[in-house]
Amino acid sequence: MSARALNHWGWGWADRFPDRPTRELLGAQLGAVLGFTPGELADPVALADADVAPSMLAPPALLAEIITDARDARARRTYGRSYRDLVRGFRGDFASAPDLVATPRDEADVVALLDWASGANVAVIPFGGGTSVVGGVERSDRERPVLVLDLANLDAVLEVERTSLSARIQAGIFGPALETTLGQHGLTLRHFPQSFEFSTLGGWIATRAGGHFATLYTHIDDLVQTTRTVTPRGVLETRRFPSSGAGPSADRLMLGSEGTLGVITEAWMRVRPRPRFRATASVHFAKFRGAVSAVHALSQSGLYPTNCRLLDPREAALNFVATDGSSVVVVGFESADHGLAVWIERALELCRDHGGVCAKGAVIREGGERTGDDGVAGSWKQAFFEAPYLQSTMVSIGVIADTFETACTWDHFEALHQAITHDVRDALRRVAGKGSLSCRFTHVYPDGPAPYYTFLAPAKRGSELAQWAEIKSAASEALARAGGTITHHHGVGRTHRPWYEREAPAPFLGMLRAAKREVDPAGIMNPGCLLA
Amino acid sequence: MSARALNHWGWGWADRFPDRPTRELLGAQLGAVLGFTPGELADPVALADADVAPSMLAPPALLAEIITDARDARARRTYGRSYRDLVRGFRGDFASAPDLVATPRDEADVVALLDWASGANVAVIPFGGGTSVVGGVERSDRERPVLVLDLANLDAVLEVERTSLSARIQAGIFGPALETTLGQHGLTLRHFPQSFEFSTLGGWIATRAGGHFATLYTHIDDLVQTTRTVTPRGVLETRRFPSSGAGPSADRLMLGSEGTLGVITEAWMRVRPRPRFRATASVHFAKFRGAVSAVHALSQSGLYPTNCRLLDPREAALNFVATDGSSVVVVGFESADHGLAVWIERALELCRDHGGVCAKGAVIREGGERTGDDGVAGSWKQAFFEAPYLQSTMVSIGVIADTFETACTWDHFEALHQAITHDVRDALRRVAGKGSLSCRFTHVYPDGPAPYYTFLAPAKRGSELAQWAEIKSAASEALARAGGTITHHHGVGRTHRPWYEREAPAPFLGMLRAAKREVDPAGIMNPGCLLA
Repeated sequence: MSARALNHWGWGWADRFPDRPTRELLGAQLGAVLGFTPGELADPVALADADVAPSMLAPPALLAEIITDARDARARRTYGRSYRDLVRGFRGDFASAPDLVATPRDEADVVALLDWASGANVAVIPFGGGTSVVGGVERSDRERPVLVLDLANLDAVLEVERTSLSARIQAGIFGPALETTLGQHGLTLRHFPQSFEFSTLGGWIATRAGGHFATLYTHIDDLVQTTRTVTPRGVLETRRFPSSGAGPSADRLMLGSEGTLGVITEAWMRVRPRPRFRATASVHFAKFRGAVSAVHALSQSGLYPTNCRLLDPREAALNFVATDGSSVVVVGFESADHGLAVWIERALELCRDHGGVCAKGAVIREGGERTGDDGVAGSWKQAFFEAPYLQSTMVSIGVIADTFETACTWDHFEALHQAITHDVRDALRRVAGKGSLSCRFTHVYPDGPAPYYTFLAPAKRGSELAQWAEIKSAASEALARAGGTITHHHGVGRTHRPWYEREAPAPFLGMLRAAKREVDPAGIMNPGCLLA
Repeated sequence: MSARALNHWGWGWADRFPDRPTRELLGAQLGAVLGFTPGELADPVALADADVAPSMLAPPALLAEIITDARDARARRTYGRSYRDLVRGFRGDFASAPDLVATPRDEADVVALLDWASGANVAVIPFGGGTSVVGGVERSDRERPVLVLDLANLDAVLEVERTSLSARIQAGIFGPALETTLGQHGLTLRHFPQSFEFSTLGGWIATRAGGHFATLYTHIDDLVQTTRTVTPRGVLETRRFPSSGAGPSADRLMLGSEGTLGVITEAWMRVRPRPRFRATASVHFAKFRGAVSAVHALSQSGLYPTNCRLLDPREAALNFVATDGSSVVVVGFESADHGLAVWIERALELCRDHGGVCAKGAVIREGGERTGDDGVAGSWKQAFFEAPYLQSTMVSIGVIADTFETACTWDHFEALHQAITHDVRDALRRVAGKGSLSCRFTHVYPDGPAPYYTFLAPAKRGSELAQWAEIKSAASEALARAGGTITHHHGVGRTHRPWYEREAPAPFLGMLRAAKREVDPAGIMNPGCLLA
């Protein structure tokens, strides 16, 4: 680990958390933009002063080299990075701290750890970057001891096989290191979730993470060629084929298993040449409904845009993309093979058919590396990766700030959007007097969009979690009623489990539990996550 | 059912089986093309004269309206349409005939049938079009009675939802009826397996069938929005979303389950507008290796051709596409949205880079319905759907005729192709003195092709099945050794099970069996298929 310290309660690097005067200024500025006055500004409790639950269990002597019960190590692996997690960490509340933290050096260590845990009846929570926003890495109870298994040392790109555009990669690697290594071969995975900087390949696979392809390769799922998982009953490694029709897909059972079946240690991934050609345009729409229609048409055009992001007027304003009440569609194409003028021109035509205006025309760049100004797409990307830092800052200045996301078929979207808008605004008024709700589409499919909502409201210091829970519950209920999935790419974890249990077919949950018992008879793997 | 009768032992309509003089002529012609003299010409045993195993069980009185033990009904649902099945049916050997045949009128009947079968310990084999080429619908043993459950009456398109390009369709519908109904709405599923005319939606889903998209939507998998399955323990219906990240995909567990988990009764499918624009080219290569390189480049270009079929010199000759020893690549694009000149031109450029020659240039058609000459792509398509008829004829004129298929990563292809060529030619010489082996690619992925092999050899009347088994085994062993999957889209069934059990990760097979026990505790669903 480098000398640069991670924030023990908030997003990312500790030195990126703004000082008090900066936060005071931001609070004032935000008030103007959001239309409400933030709650009380406060400072986070230092890690040294935090309340960290004591460990119930000493590390076993035989595994002492790779297991610790040190207080700070346990505190830093207590939570993910949901709003709830941030608030508790900010307050110095680490009551959920695990009892032990293991950092295996290699896969053999992972096997040894699961062997020991199975025998000792210790629950195991696999831990990548710890960026879950759904309670995926937090212990469910104190009924038995909990070991957090941190994959930080399994962080290598093991093989790059250029002919088939494949790479064998260890699960604990973080996004930037993965892209840097692939980049040395002229390749990219091009999977950029918002957590990219601090999340891992294994975490992406376990949670079916959503990347930055708007179409085709939206989830990590289709980029997975094989998976290798250490289960309590042995290693499950799938075979390396571009595709197969031999029985149900084993990889698809591991994808989304959220640590309940074992520890994913490595995977062969489908990579691609770094793009040489790019074409991008941002299109303004006077009406949100026009922007939706345009994206609907784009999604069914067979053009497969790499980027196709819709921002409602409030998202556009919050991200400084448009401040005149327009909705904005950012559409883009990338290729390592061919120029994209025809693609972007047809996309713009479709947008114009639905009332879109692209004042500046398309930005088409062919050949060479990315340089300088990327226009709206570039500033959007910057804001996208900054957002988690901003959320942590919001906690400190007294703003409830969270997001939720879904996917629904096009025929359900209008009613779903109305239900969400009505019910969440209602909840915001109830718990906070006022608040802000905005919507964007993160991914689009021929059969429906993946809408993503952000809500912001003044926090009552000390009551934020109750406020948040009421808003979150209103949102989740509205999704369930209006035909949206409880999550398109954030995962189920513990937070979404009640709604997942209503959404998933009961016989399938039975099959999933039976499959789990087969490889995890002692039920040690991430108990309470995904499955009750 | 129409008055037109189905062939009781061979492919398709009975009236399409050629008379004896025609077959004699064909035998002589084939000899010249194939380089060997076919074996002995013979006539099929009429159904009335066939040896059909007697039923072990009378239909239960309560279900008498939908269950029969009639001899002909049972004979006609004994086999699929593999070479082995054809030979046995041709000989009048129906020793594997099921004991009962059910034709449920609706889903309630399916539920009642499974309830009864669970209680009576009767094995149930779901039956769509009966076109399995891997023993997917043939009873494994006579240890307990077998009921074949024929879904022919569940054959409706129930809903067409245009906004999201979705349709709810019953599982028993055959390809042509499905396309005719969707066509009335200007839509298509565009899933054209070679069995299209006589196979069903439910069969495609249960077996992860491969369609006629060369890229992106190769298997039925990605066209499935939801599945509805009657298991012995209740109905499992997935929710209608364009995508979700909530837990492992339930649909992906049903896809490829081959009737072992229940009876798929309906599905919401992703459909698309019928194409208005087409661009096609056929490109000749002096060297097979050049054609492979061109397809390799196409697969990684991001152009996503709809069609991208490579024929080795022998395939090209057998299909009258080229007779000069060239390998041929047929590449094509389709769209309902935009002209495709740029796409096909870039594809041709890539082919030329690898030594391809497209003497006639691309055929580009924009707007309007398909009319008249489709060139090579059209004659190929015709031959493609005729092939199963030809295979049945081959049986009667004394030619062993079968295919096998796989997928492997690009880095493994050359060695795999060499191993197959060597081992299968060797087996052909051993069992038949001589024979023909040819190769085409049916689908291509950025990380590898799906090679498809056809073998033909003179049959020794009476020993065909032993000859066939030795060739098939040599092929399957070579695939296993050289890094190919045992099946890209034909399925596992009973024929491929020994190799599937080596290919699938053991812990996954354990999980699959555990999942099956959960919904099928009596183990009545298609026992011996896929799982031992």
